[in-house]
Amino acid sequence: MGKQAPIGVFDSGVGGLTVAREIMRQIPNERIIYFGDTARVPYGSKSQFTIIRFVRQIVHFLETKEVKAIVVACNTASAYALETIERELKIPIIGVVKPGARTAVRTTVNGRIGVIATDATINSGMYTRFIQGINPDLAVYGKACPLFVPLVEEGMLHDFVTEEIANRYLEDLKKQDIDTLILGCTHYPLLRSLIGKCMGVSVQLVNPAYETAISLRELLKEKELLADPLPEGQMVHHEFYVSDGAEKFEIFANSILPYDIRKTQVIDIEGY
Amino acid sequence: MGKQAPIGVFDSGVGGLTVAREIMRQIPNERIIYFGDTARVPYGSKSQFTIIRFVRQIVHFLETKEVKAIVVACNTASAYALETIERELKIPIIGVVKPGARTAVRTTVNGRIGVIATDATINSGMYTRFIQGINPDLAVYGKACPLFVPLVEEGMLHDFVTEEIANRYLEDLKKQDIDTLILGCTHYPLLRSLIGKCMGVSVQLVNPAYETAISLRELLKEKELLADPLPEGQMVHHEFYVSDGAEKFEIFANSILPYDIRKTQVIDIEGY
Repeated sequence: MGKQAPIGVFDSGVGGLTVAREIMRQIPNERIIYFGDTARVPYGSKSQFTIIRFVRQIVHFLETKEVKAIVVACNTASAYALETIERELKIPIIGVVKPGARTAVRTTVNGRIGVIATDATINSGMYTRFIQGINPDLAVYGKACPLFVPLVEEGMLHDFVTEEIANRYLEDLKKQDIDTLILGCTHYPLLRSLIGKCMGVSVQLVNPAYETAISLRELLKEKELLADPLPEGQMVHHEFYVSDGAEKFEIFANSILPYDIRKTQVIDIEGY
Repeated sequence: MGKQAPIGVFDSGVGGLTVAREIMRQIPNERIIYFGDTARVPYGSKSQFTIIRFVRQIVHFLETKEVKAIVVACNTASAYALETIERELKIPIIGVVKPGARTAVRTTVNGRIGVIATDATINSGMYTRFIQGINPDLAVYGKACPLFVPLVEEGMLHDFVTEEIANRYLEDLKKQDIDTLILGCTHYPLLRSLIGKCMGVSVQLVNPAYETAISLRELLKEKELLADPLPEGQMVHHEFYVSDGAEKFEIFANSILPYDIRKTQVIDIEGY
């Protein structure tokens, strides 16, 4: 695969766009093929078996686009499917869990790290495994926050109801005296200010999207796959695919990406 | 198809069990093959195109079980897919929207009916179409309540947060002076007391599950398909299938069905 080939980025829906946005910022020469599995969203309440099957189909689709590397821009899919899929693939693939875990390890001072995520990500125990794989002396406290995604999708980013729910979810983590909190679901950075207010200034929030883009850049550099800049005046042309609801996807995408996207294509992912 | 053949009942997940429960109560001789599409739940935020595709696969699966009739125990699937699928099928199929609409028409005194449901069901306009098909003078007011399903699934049935969300969602309907409110999503009857408190005693709540079971009984009777009672001492043996998470499904099922179920089978619905 040549270095001018695109990068495949996927998520269960729109959340992974926060990761795509970081990649566009950190390595702006790279062309992205984004897939959002909007017909089967959310993944966070589903089983490992099902998630691996879904991810396998998505990877097959991205391979038809001749991508040079794949980013699993979804915490649940990274936690449940990455290790299995990695063994089946010839091109490099990275997820968001490992970069998020590494940043948390570097960030913590008192050795006490919290993770908030979907049921599936928390139940997988992957954040704990990666963090303690780097340093077994660190303590990790996980908490599933199933209402955060629907609240974000209702646009209730600055609402006292969301604050009340956040206070309930985060109560136990506050008692654990953590100094670092991983936002372990791609929707959660959109609740950053509310979560920060609830946890207080002494707790550092870690957004794995940023670190994932950095890891991707290092990986491409190491494998000599970094794309050359386009001739002056030419723009990188990203492509967007979903399994359902292109219009709804574009509205969300246009609210968080630095430019407007058009012509999102709907594909039948079950056929891959 | 003989009259001792089973009835297929399906939903996007667990909500349709409230309909299965009513069928067990109203026509206890009937054997049920239940399917919950837990791998692709929820349907309420998805497009008509995708929902029709999902329903077609489920109907194919139920046909392999040689069902004599099918109940679409999901408002979204009834609203978006029933008319299309009905034309493709040789056995009778009924949904929950039409029975719910009929009950509301019989219930209202002042001619002002409210409907609460998922985004997809409200956007389909099917409740309005059926109600005004019976009586064009009736006024229908719809309101999507996307957070109700996740709140029910978090078990927050009697919580001030859910009450606050309900007050916001129902505020407009209260201003419309409705006297009848259709609970147009199979999860909503579980919020019945909270919604009733919010709307006040002058508003009658309609649960389409009850009326659907009655409609099914009439339909089977008309087609001479009502099952004979089993010999004394024998039990009707219902079967349960899901596309993901059998264990989680059983926990929910056992909390709302009159007896415990076991051996729920996971099937690959995309293969049908």
